[in-house]
Amino acid sequence: MPASPIRKLTPYADQAKLDGKHVYHLNIGQPDIETPQLMLDAVRNIDFKVWAYTPSEGTASYRNKLSGYYNKLGYDIAPGDILVTNGGSEALTIVMQACVNPGEEIIIPEPFYANYKSFASSAGIVIQPILSHIDDGFALPPITDFEKLITENTRAIAICSPNNPTGYLYSRQEMEALRDLCLNYDLFLIADEAYREFCYDEKEFISPMHLEGLDQHVVIVDTVSKRYSACGARLGCLITKNKSLWQMALKFAQARLSPPAVAQIAAEAAVDTPESYFEAVKQEYTARRNVLVAGLNRIPGVFCPNPGGAFYVLARLPIDDADRFCQWMLEHFSHENQTVMMAPASGFYSTAGSGADEVRLAYVLNCDDLRKALVCLEKGLESYPGRRSK
Amino acid sequence: MPASPIRKLTPYADQAKLDGKHVYHLNIGQPDIETPQLMLDAVRNIDFKVWAYTPSEGTASYRNKLSGYYNKLGYDIAPGDILVTNGGSEALTIVMQACVNPGEEIIIPEPFYANYKSFASSAGIVIQPILSHIDDGFALPPITDFEKLITENTRAIAICSPNNPTGYLYSRQEMEALRDLCLNYDLFLIADEAYREFCYDEKEFISPMHLEGLDQHVVIVDTVSKRYSACGARLGCLITKNKSLWQMALKFAQARLSPPAVAQIAAEAAVDTPESYFEAVKQEYTARRNVLVAGLNRIPGVFCPNPGGAFYVLARLPIDDADRFCQWMLEHFSHENQTVMMAPASGFYSTAGSGADEVRLAYVLNCDDLRKALVCLEKGLESYPGRRSK
Repeated sequence: MPASPIRKLTPYADQAKLDGKHVYHLNIGQPDIETPQLMLDAVRNIDFKVWAYTPSEGTASYRNKLSGYYNKLGYDIAPGDILVTNGGSEALTIVMQACVNPGEEIIIPEPFYANYKSFASSAGIVIQPILSHIDDGFALPPITDFEKLITENTRAIAICSPNNPTGYLYSRQEMEALRDLCLNYDLFLIADEAYREFCYDEKEFISPMHLEGLDQHVVIVDTVSKRYSACGARLGCLITKNKSLWQMALKFAQARLSPPAVAQIAAEAAVDTPESYFEAVKQEYTARRNVLVAGLNRIPGVFCPNPGGAFYVLARLPIDDADRFCQWMLEHFSHENQTVMMAPASGFYSTAGSGADEVRLAYVLNCDDLRKALVCLEKGLESYPGRRSK
Repeated sequence: MPASPIRKLTPYADQAKLDGKHVYHLNIGQPDIETPQLMLDAVRNIDFKVWAYTPSEGTASYRNKLSGYYNKLGYDIAPGDILVTNGGSEALTIVMQACVNPGEEIIIPEPFYANYKSFASSAGIVIQPILSHIDDGFALPPITDFEKLITENTRAIAICSPNNPTGYLYSRQEMEALRDLCLNYDLFLIADEAYREFCYDEKEFISPMHLEGLDQHVVIVDTVSKRYSACGARLGCLITKNKSLWQMALKFAQARLSPPAVAQIAAEAAVDTPESYFEAVKQEYTARRNVLVAGLNRIPGVFCPNPGGAFYVLARLPIDDADRFCQWMLEHFSHENQTVMMAPASGFYSTAGSGADEVRLAYVLNCDDLRKALVCLEKGLESYPGRRSK
């Protein structure tokens, strides 16, 4: 293991310049953290002669080892409850298709990860968004708001905690409220846990797998992308103790034959990543979040909640329209030949017009770069023609 | 490079026993051929520190190199015409979704690769099968048969040549007839070329990319799975010169973020695989096909055409029902403690009742094993209770 897995360079260094300007890329969730050495070593040490298909549900060896990882977290699952996928993306696609028929509905608190829309629409599934608010830090909307949306076509509720794009981490109370709701209305609870390892301030991570009585209702969606900074491995999984749901998911998995073989070997090795790796990463992200959140709230007119996890914040800016502002920052602004790239929040909302003055910032750069990016942002807001005065 | 890439063992050796019986696995398309050494070496030599996403359409470096491979075949394409995917499976899924709207139709000669059905049904697309016949070796059905099926909902014709499951290789004449048809009715021509490298008897491989006038109509689906015996790499691509189709495909690709990174590094290296590798593989498969086809036709009541490519044959057996027979061979039969596993052809037909007495055999075992499997099959047919007398 290197002393610290934190890199000083972005992986997209070649993309960091635009028209000669240096661009701080806070728009995407590609961490700059090094992949654990033992995971890369496992790739370098492959010893097969035929790069063959693995079983559609993943290799027995990887699923065994992986169940150990989850059980250390208190999930109490068997290797047979896991189905290995081509990234978290495929896990989400398969889970939606396995839980919900075309024309039926999933309720998802918004803002939510933009690609949920693509996966749902490919499968003819309808997303019913339920608004969470920046002013209460994107906490779980009241359960009565969910109940208003539930119809006979509702099949599932999908959540992501810690959340992309808000960073919000659901509390035990919120998770229990969701549990009761799903049991009352007999709905699947789809939990995207891509950012499980990224919880700060000693806050407790609560999975639906930690709650009693939900065994037949829960599906976990997971990925090695963020946990081990291995986005390019394209390896995820779904976990459910509901056997008929698992079997249905397997049918979709069989159609695409196999998840990637080398990634499974590497991810199996990665389960032994020492706790010190995650501690160093968490410490780094906590420092970055603190710099970013404090810095944003110091800028006049800007409001940013202090989220408990992931590596994103969603901030409100004193602007007319975030799409226009983000574009303007790239094309028409520079401060000391630098600018900032952010993701307009509108893409994370399903309800038209929501989040028009919000942006998502991923703190995937080191603290020094974040400070420089904050100066750029402040200067940009000062000279942006569409600045709102109030 | 090893002297010969042909292995003496099946990769699924651990699955080769059933209730203590040895099972000859002729049911699946997992080749026993070694992956080119330089491809595996590229995996062992990875030198990145962060296993990052690649661009959704694949790395520039791989697409550049890959366009060279295609242009050596006479395709005349640019790197920008290629979109890299998670295996041929994802290429097929994306191509269907990009070419055809839900509720619209694709015409596909049957028998066809069973998973086409899954990909189409996931996307709400209707497959119109068009029957090809074992008695003429599964040649292209008459163009007038296609014309009868074309409606205002028809968007594409999909073919696979050399074919899975029949091994049939379309001639230049057949390809030109398809070209004229697609131009006349303004249909996309989707060509699955997974088995391009496996053409025998000095027969010419004709891609729609070799034909004039089709630039805006053709999409090629490809994979490294069979070409380099790298099924577990999960790396494929689609190729089209139709820019709006490519852009539409990119939207689907962006939703799943990235194809696998290590596989792209390995497949880029694999483009330099020497011709001698393919020559050795082709020689081996030709020998196997000759053993299998001759052996099958020597068994009383069996008929098997002699296909020009891939590594499958589809044979007609003197039986009541191939599903029942294949199951019976596994569960109730053994000869010298051995039996044969085959794929009933019914799974490759969309028209109910078609191919009920046909099986697909993959010649992914060496000639000695194929001879032993043929003895088993002959003995099995002799004692099978559902044998047909005519």
